Amino acid sequence: MPHHVSSPARLEAFSDGVIAVIITIMVLEIKVPHENGLAGLHAILPTLGVYALSFAFTGIYWINHHHLVHRTEEADTNILYANLVFLFFLSLLPFFTSYLLEKEIDSFSVAIYAASMVITGFSFLLLRIAIGSRLKKSGAIEQEDIAAQRKHYLSLALYLVAIPLAFYHSYVALGVVAMVTIVWIYPTAAVKPHEETFSPRP
Amino acid sequence: MPHHVSSPARLEAFSDGVIAVIITIMVLEIKVPHENGLAGLHAILPTLGVYALSFAFTGIYWINHHHLVHRTEEADTNILYANLVFLFFLSLLPFFTSYLLEKEIDSFSVAIYAASMVITGFSFLLLRIAIGSRLKKSGAIEQEDIAAQRKHYLSLALYLVAIPLAFYHSYVALGVVAMVTIVWIYPTAAVKPHEETFSPRP
Amino acid sequence: MPHHVSSPARLEAFSDGVIAVIITIMVLEIKVPHENGLAGLHAILPTLGVYALSFAFTGIYWINHHHLVHRTEEADTNILYANLVFLFFLSLLPFFTSYLLEKEIDSFSVAIYAASMVITGFSFLLLRIAIGSRLKKSGAIEQEDIAAQRKHYLSLALYLVAIPLAFYHSYVALGVVAMVTIVWIYPTAAVKPHEETFSPRP
Amino acid sequence: MPHHVSSPARLEAFSDGVIAVIITIMVLEIKVPHENGLAGLHAILPTLGVYALSFAFTGIYWINHHHLVHRTEEADTNILYANLVFLFFLSLLPFFTSYLLEKEIDSFSVAIYAASMVITGFSFLLLRIAIGSRLKKSGAIEQEDIAAQRKHYLSLALYLVAIPLAFYHSYVALGVVAMVTIVWIYPTAAVKPHEETFSPRP
Repeated sequence: MPHHVSSPARLEAFSDGVIAVIITIMVLEIKVPHENGLAGLHAILPTLGVYALSFAFTGIYWINHHHLVHRTEEADTNILYANLVFLFFLSLLPFFTSYLLEKEIDSFSVAIYAASMVITGFSFLLLRIAIGSRLKKSGAIEQEDIAAQRKHYLSLALYLVAIPLAFYHSYVALGVVAMVTIVWIYPTAAVKPHEETFSPRP
Repeated sequence: MPHHVSSPARLEAFSDGVIAVIITIMVLEIKVPHENGLAGLHAILPTLGVYALSFAFTGIYWINHHHLVHRTEEADTNILYANLVFLFFLSLLPFFTSYLLEKEIDSFSVAIYAASMVITGFSFLLLRIAIGSRLKKSGAIEQEDIAAQRKHYLSLALYLVAIPLAFYHSYVALGVVAMVTIVWIYPTAAVKPHEETFSPRP
Repeated sequence: MPHHVSSPARLEAFSDGVIAVIITIMVLEIKVPHENGLAGLHAILPTLGVYALSFAFTGIYWINHHHLVHRTEEADTNILYANLVFLFFLSLLPFFTSYLLEKEIDSFSVAIYAASMVITGFSFLLLRIAIGSRLKKSGAIEQEDIAAQRKHYLSLALYLVAIPLAFYHSYVALGVVAMVTIVWIYPTAAVKPHEETFSPRP
Repeated sequence: MPHHVSSPARLEAFSDGVIAVIITIMVLEIKVPHENGLAGLHAILPTLGVYALSFAFTGIYWINHHHLVHRTEEADTNILYANLVFLFFLSLLPFFTSYLLEKEIDSFSVAIYAASMVITGFSFLLLRIAIGSRLKKSGAIEQEDIAAQRKHYLSLALYLVAIPLAFYHSYVALGVVAMVTIVWIYPTAAVKPHEETFSPRP
């Protein structure tokens, strides 16, 4: 069965399923507080914040996954395995999110949470390379793909910085992680709207 | 990757996955009662009722999501992000359902449960606006879209009323929430059947 | 949005997602036994058996759902709501399966388990009627659809018999439930193979 | 409804959903360690390793399922039931993974874990035979299908060897299981790349 080439439809369907489960089961970990009234709500605010961050991280990967896989019309075996590796590391996020919360956002748990984001990012890079090499073969690689890859390197570098930073200021490090995630959203939604005119996609 | 325009197929698939997980994991929270026989069944009736309400709420959002996304043929980045925000707030529903049950339907838990429905409703409105602005651009907006939006405002206003009401009569407030949800179902299924004849959709 | 008519593709996707979660989360309830070695395996055999039964029940409903929805080319609002009601009752199966196991297959838990199967069956009948009335409108109803419905009534009647029977012999009643489920499989797979030749479907 | 022949699209969608849930819920079982810092991380390394193995096992079955179902253009009732049986045994993997971890990788738990992989493998063989018999009917069976089946027998034999081996050296047996899983990946990704040139698929 080597180098089978198939449509990416089922790759997308399976990845959608896995990412949908990952993004949703995290909420199962949020425990109802013992305190009643506003005090209880106040007690779970950090938990909700961390959950929101992990949700955003996963959601942004879904959008990027969507854009990336959308670029190729074929999924070979390398792409299927790179995708599995990516999904594996992403599937650890609910665990590292629980880790962060049970250890009450201490230095080590923030470092390990940021490290899991770095590893997930690297595995997504693998998928990007696997798809890129397929696009290059068919001559379909574009300026935009290279720009996306450059942005990807930058975000990985910043997640990396958060790891040692966590041992000095765990909350600042978590803030860096959150900011990188948010910054990743912002330009995608707002920068270079004119480019669309030049390279519309069906 | 700005303002990428793609078919909404994967948006639907991912949303279906997330909503399917949300609607199903809530049942994991229903605990088998300690009492045997009819007494046990009686003990869990309120739980089953609240679960049914949350299930109906989620299911109706799925149907509305289905109708809304069905209206557009393209999903731009704004729509993808608005959809993620909506799914985020919807994914908190299992948590607020547990909250309601563990706090035994006290005032604060009903207020917070109704508040979560209001926020989910507002985020769905964001998605409606993102898709509506795309429809307006392509001149595909219709009378019916505006009617759906008006009905949406009304239901949000009634969920809002349930929040302060919860502090006087928590069960009455929960009843208001349930009624709004049921009323949302009813007219959709039964009103204006003749309109179909005038504006059939493929 | 009344009597919207859309392709059943998303109805199928959502139902597949919900049924996939239902069928899989039940296994989360199986607890690792305290005993070591064969004694431990022996201790969980009844649990595995009940899980297999619930899995088969859900799986057979998926196959029947597949065949039923496949028959229609359009999903109107009635069908969407009937489908939600069916999914609601099916989603209670993991709960009633836990009920059965935690109460150690006592009479009441078997009766309630069989009752949940009856209610799920009735709600599937609602879906069958909603789709059937659509098929009748378009003149696409067939002999086979009516035969499937008759078989459906029979299985419901037998699940119903299991409810009072549970109070005399809980294991016999569970056996009846299991047999009805298995019998439902058998003829579907083996009876009337020649009919296929006369009415092939694309 | 006998021998209904339908497109395998929904079979794929449902299987993708079930496998996505199976592969992801396993991570819910990983408990945050009590120890802080590196000691805690060290304590959960075996757990992460076993989780990675179960993830790889499931992921590889997904890829093989993808390739297998991709080969047929029709799904008859036999294929639907064989697929359900396969999904049933695969869905037990999270349970046997917990078993392995809670019993701290003792002999019996490794034997039972390997046995569950053998049974899952046999049920996949059933699915392969159900699809193969359909392919033979339509004359679409190929050399490659037979090669895949031979490789399948080999891996089953090696998983089988791991069962008695577990009673002598549980870690060696687990290593055999891991190696078979990895070896299954390797040649699929790397062997016989020239064959692709001779038999490209659309």
